Amino acid sequence: MQAGFIGLGHMGAAMAGRLVAASHDVTVYNRDPQKRRPLVELGATEATSPADACRGPVVITMLADDAAVEQVALGPDGITQSLAVGGIHISMSTISIALARKLALAHKHAGQRFISAPVLGRPEAAAAGKLFIIAGGDTAALMTCKPLLDVIGQRTITISAEPCGANLAKLAINFLVASAIEALGESVALVGKGGLDRQAFIDLLTSTVLTAPAYKTYGDLIVHQRFSPAGFAAALGHKDIRLALGVAAELRVPMPLAGLLDERFLRLLARGGNDLDWAAIGGLAGLDAGDQRTALTVSAKK
Amino acid sequence: MQAGFIGLGHMGAAMAGRLVAASHDVTVYNRDPQKRRPLVELGATEATSPADACRGPVVITMLADDAAVEQVALGPDGITQSLAVGGIHISMSTISIALARKLALAHKHAGQRFISAPVLGRPEAAAAGKLFIIAGGDTAALMTCKPLLDVIGQRTITISAEPCGANLAKLAINFLVASAIEALGESVALVGKGGLDRQAFIDLLTSTVLTAPAYKTYGDLIVHQRFSPAGFAAALGHKDIRLALGVAAELRVPMPLAGLLDERFLRLLARGGNDLDWAAIGGLAGLDAGDQRTALTVSAKK
Amino acid sequence: MQAGFIGLGHMGAAMAGRLVAASHDVTVYNRDPQKRRPLVELGATEATSPADACRGPVVITMLADDAAVEQVALGPDGITQSLAVGGIHISMSTISIALARKLALAHKHAGQRFISAPVLGRPEAAAAGKLFIIAGGDTAALMTCKPLLDVIGQRTITISAEPCGANLAKLAINFLVASAIEALGESVALVGKGGLDRQAFIDLLTSTVLTAPAYKTYGDLIVHQRFSPAGFAAALGHKDIRLALGVAAELRVPMPLAGLLDERFLRLLARGGNDLDWAAIGGLAGLDAGDQRTALTVSAKK
Amino acid sequence: MQAGFIGLGHMGAAMAGRLVAASHDVTVYNRDPQKRRPLVELGATEATSPADACRGPVVITMLADDAAVEQVALGPDGITQSLAVGGIHISMSTISIALARKLALAHKHAGQRFISAPVLGRPEAAAAGKLFIIAGGDTAALMTCKPLLDVIGQRTITISAEPCGANLAKLAINFLVASAIEALGESVALVGKGGLDRQAFIDLLTSTVLTAPAYKTYGDLIVHQRFSPAGFAAALGHKDIRLALGVAAELRVPMPLAGLLDERFLRLLARGGNDLDWAAIGGLAGLDAGDQRTALTVSAKK
Repeated sequence: MQAGFIGLGHMGAAMAGRLVAASHDVTVYNRDPQKRRPLVELGATEATSPADACRGPVVITMLADDAAVEQVALGPDGITQSLAVGGIHISMSTISIALARKLALAHKHAGQRFISAPVLGRPEAAAAGKLFIIAGGDTAALMTCKPLLDVIGQRTITISAEPCGANLAKLAINFLVASAIEALGESVALVGKGGLDRQAFIDLLTSTVLTAPAYKTYGDLIVHQRFSPAGFAAALGHKDIRLALGVAAELRVPMPLAGLLDERFLRLLARGGNDLDWAAIGGLAGLDAGDQRTALTVSAKK
Repeated sequence: MQAGFIGLGHMGAAMAGRLVAASHDVTVYNRDPQKRRPLVELGATEATSPADACRGPVVITMLADDAAVEQVALGPDGITQSLAVGGIHISMSTISIALARKLALAHKHAGQRFISAPVLGRPEAAAAGKLFIIAGGDTAALMTCKPLLDVIGQRTITISAEPCGANLAKLAINFLVASAIEALGESVALVGKGGLDRQAFIDLLTSTVLTAPAYKTYGDLIVHQRFSPAGFAAALGHKDIRLALGVAAELRVPMPLAGLLDERFLRLLARGGNDLDWAAIGGLAGLDAGDQRTALTVSAKK
Repeated sequence: MQAGFIGLGHMGAAMAGRLVAASHDVTVYNRDPQKRRPLVELGATEATSPADACRGPVVITMLADDAAVEQVALGPDGITQSLAVGGIHISMSTISIALARKLALAHKHAGQRFISAPVLGRPEAAAAGKLFIIAGGDTAALMTCKPLLDVIGQRTITISAEPCGANLAKLAINFLVASAIEALGESVALVGKGGLDRQAFIDLLTSTVLTAPAYKTYGDLIVHQRFSPAGFAAALGHKDIRLALGVAAELRVPMPLAGLLDERFLRLLARGGNDLDWAAIGGLAGLDAGDQRTALTVSAKK
Repeated sequence: MQAGFIGLGHMGAAMAGRLVAASHDVTVYNRDPQKRRPLVELGATEATSPADACRGPVVITMLADDAAVEQVALGPDGITQSLAVGGIHISMSTISIALARKLALAHKHAGQRFISAPVLGRPEAAAAGKLFIIAGGDTAALMTCKPLLDVIGQRTITISAEPCGANLAKLAINFLVASAIEALGESVALVGKGGLDRQAFIDLLTSTVLTAPAYKTYGDLIVHQRFSPAGFAAALGHKDIRLALGVAAELRVPMPLAGLLDERFLRLLARGGNDLDWAAIGGLAGLDAGDQRTALTVSAKK
C-alpha cells in the first residue's frame, strides 16, 4: 500500500521503519534531511517537502506538537493543498482537541478524509510493533488504513466516530500515567526515608495490586533515578498535561490532580529538566524529602 | 495449628473462616457475640473475651483501627497480659507505624513476639484466599506462622525485619491505589463530558497501558457509580491516607498528592459518605463537572 | 484634553463618565449603541466605529478580554490603522502579557505609542475616581496622559518602562486577592462549623492582623453569601488566574496556589456561576463543609 | 494584682516583662532557670516549679506546644493540682481545640476557672504591648483578668464563651496569614522572574489593595529573603497549620489551601528550615523558579 510518512523523530522513525519492512511503498519526509536517510536506506522513497509526501492515497503525520502539525497540514503547500480528493490524512501525534477539530473540518472542505490515531507506547514498543493505536474517525476510512495500522501497532481500538475523540482519550490516558508516576514518586520517597528497600517495595507493589507494566517500568526508573536518556521527554509530558487542562477548562471539568501535575512538570522544567524522561517528576518528592542522590540535578545540568 | 482470632468484620470473618475450613483449631472473638456465631457454626470455638482467645501459641487481630487494636492488645486483660511467654501476636489490621512500634515493644517486654502482617485485597479476595500478605517481623516467628498465613493469603511477602515496616508498605500501597482512583475519577469525568463512552474508555485503558485489575475494578465502579455496598469503606480509606500523612510528617516527606486525597475523602465524608466504598472519591470530579447521576448523593443520604 | 474611549461596560462607563465630568473632550464607542447613550447625555461625543474614536491624540480601551482588545486594536479599521502618528493608545483592560507585547510592537511599527494602564478597584471605586492605576510604558507618553489618568484614578503607579510589566503586576495582584478570597472562604467555613459567629470572626480578623479593606469586603460577602450582583464576575476572575498561569508557564514559575484557584473557579463555573461575583469561590469551602445556605446554588440557577 | 507566669520564651518573656513593669506582683517560671533571671532582675519573684507559680489567684501559661501545656497544667504538681479553688488559668499559647477542651474540663472538675487567650503578634509587638488578645471563656473570669490582659495587649476581643473558641479563631487567623505568605511568595517569584522590581511590586501592592501591615512585613522579608532570625519559627507555623487541619478533619471541613500549606512547611522543614521564620515558605516558589539567592539554603544549613 502506498503511503507518505511525515515526522521521523524517535517514534516516527520506528513506525515508518516498520511500514517499510512490511513492504509498503512509503515516502518519508522530515524537515531535517539527515533524519530521512536511515529510512531511505531501508527502502523508503525520500520526499523533499510535505507536499511531496502526499502523492499516494494516505499520508501519516507523527510530529512533536500542535504547531508542527498545523504547519505541515494547513500551511502553504501543506497536506490539505496537496493530498488528492478522497485521500486520507492519519494524524498519529498527540495534539489538542481543538486542532483535531480544525483539521477534520479543513480536510472535509478539501474533499479529503481525516483520522486521528494517536499511539500508546514508548520508542521500544514502536520499533517492536507493540504500540496501541487509539483511533477516531470514519469507519470506512479506518478500514482502508487497516493494513498500515496493523503493521504499526499490536492493536487498534476505535473509540469515537469523531477524530478528536481519539485525542481526548489519549490525553486522558497520559494524564492517568503521569498520575501514577507522581504517586510512585511520593510513595517511593516515603518508604525509602522510612527505611524500606525501595526496589523491594516496587516489586511488592507490582506483584500484587498494581501489576500493570507501567508501574514496573516507572517504579524502576524512579528507584534508580534513571531519567536520561528520555523515552518520553518531560517537555512533551508537560505539553500533554496542559492540553488536558485546556480541554478540561473548555468543558468545565475541574481536575485538581491534573493541576498538581502541571505544577510538578513546571518545577522540573524550571530546573532544566526538559530533556529528562517524564518519569523525573517522580524524583521531585525524593528530592524534597532530602534524598541526596543527584540524577535529577546532574542530568538537568547537562 | 491452634490460633485465636480477634475481629470478625467483613474481612476478619472471611479470614477466620478459611482457617476453620483448613482444619486449624481456631478460637474466635468479636465484641458483638452475634458475629461469633457463624464462625462457631463452621467449627470454631467461641471466646468470650480477648484474653480467652489467647489460649494458644498464636493470636491474630483484624480490627478496624488503632484504638481497637490498642484496646485489645494493651488494655486490661489484653493480649500482652494473656498470651503465653514466647507466644506470637499477628496484627493484620492497617494500623499506624507508631502503634506497630508500641506493640512490638510491649510484646517484647512481655516476652512475647509480634508480627505485623497487613493484607491487600477486598472481602471477596479474603473469602477466596486470594489476599496478599505484607509481613514484617522476626524470620523465625514468621516461619512458625506460615501454615496459618498460607491459608489466609495467596502469598506472603516479607518486606522488613521490623514489624512496622509492613505497615508502612501497606499505607504506601493504599495511597497508590487511592491515587489511581482519583486519577480515574478525573479522567472519566473528562472523557464523559467530552462525549466519549465512559465504559469504552475504561476498557481501552485497562486493555492497553494500565492493565492492573485495580484499574478495571475501580474504573467500573466509577463509571457505573456503584459505591454501595462498600468493599472498603471511605471512612477507613480516609483513615489510611491520614496515617500515611502522619508518618510523612514525622519523616518529613512532602506528599502533595496525599494531601489532595485527604481533602477529597474529607469532602466525601462531609457529604455523609462514610459508608460508601472508597471508590466514591472518584465520583467527586464527575459531580463537580455537572454529572447529574445521583449515586453519590442518594447513597450518602441513606 | 481630547480623548477617545472604547468599551463602556460597568467599569468603562464609570471611567469615561469621570472624564466627561472633568470637561475633557471625550468621544465614546461601544459595540452596543445603547451603552453609548448615557455618556452622550452626559456630554460625550458618540463614535460609530473604533476608528471614529481615534480622532484625537489619545484613545483609551477598557474591554472584557484579549479577543476584544485585539479586534479593536489590530482588526480592520482598528486603532493601529486609525490613530495619528505619535498618537497614544492607553489599554486599561486586564489583558495577557503576550497581547500587551504584541500591541506595543504593532503601535511602534505604526509610529504610535502604547501604554498599558490596568486598574485596581471595583465599579464603585471607578465611579468615585478611587481606582489605582498601574502603568507601564514610556515616561513621556505617560506624562502626556497624566491629566486623563488623574481624573480616572486616585493614583497612578509606574511599575515598568515596558507596557507589559503593568499587566504582569496586575495579574499578580489579582492572584493575591483571589488567594485571600479562598483563604477567607476556608477559614469562615472552619470557624462557622466550629460554632463561632462568622461575622464576629471577620470583624476580629480585619480589626487586628489583616486590616486591608479587601479582607473586610470579601469577608462580608462570604459570610452573608452575597455573590450577586457581581462587582467583578467569576468568569473574568477565572480568566485572570489563567492568564497568570499562562505567563507562569512561559516563565517557568511553578505556582501551586494559582493552580488551586484555577480549579476552584472552574468548579464554580461548572455550577453555572459565571455571573456571580468572584468572591463566590469563597463559598465553595462552606458548601463542601455542608453549609445549607443556598446563595451559591440559587444564584447559579438563575 | 498577683499572677504567676509560666513560659519565658521570646513571647512569654516580653509579656511577663510588661506585667512586671506595670507593677503587678508576678511570679515567673521557666524550666530553664537561666530564662527566669532577666525577669527577676526586672522585679519578678522566681518560682522553682509550676506549682510554685500558682500561689495567687491567676496563673498565665505561654508555652511552645500542646505537650508542654499539658505537662504543666495536668501533670504531677501541675496547675490543676496547685491552683486554689476559684483560681483562674489563662492559657495564652496556641494550642489545639482538643487540649483547650480537656483543660476547661479538668479545671472545672478542680473547682477552678479556665480562659483561653491566644495572642496575635510577633515578639516586637509583645514587648510594646501591641499584641491583640483573642479571648474565650466565662465573662466574669475575663473581667477579673482584665487588668493583666490590658497590660499585655492593646486590645482583647472576646470571641466565644467556650475557651476553645478562642483557639479555633487563632488557628484560623494563622492559616489566613500563612496563606498570604504563600501567595506573596508565588507572586514575588512571578513578577521577579518577569523582570519587575520585586520591592516596587510589594510597595505597589501594599499601598493599594492589600494595605494590611502583614503584607508589608512578609512581602519585605520574602523580597530580601530575611528569614533568620525568626520572629515566628517555621516549625511552630507548621504545628499551627496541622492543628487547623486536625480540627478541620474532626469537623469535616475540606481545606485544600491548608493542605497546600502543610506540604510547603514540610518541604521547608525537610530542608532543615525549622528555625527559619515561617515567612520562609514564601521563598520556596522563588527557589523553584530558579532564584539563585541562597538565604533559604544557607540559613537551613546553619
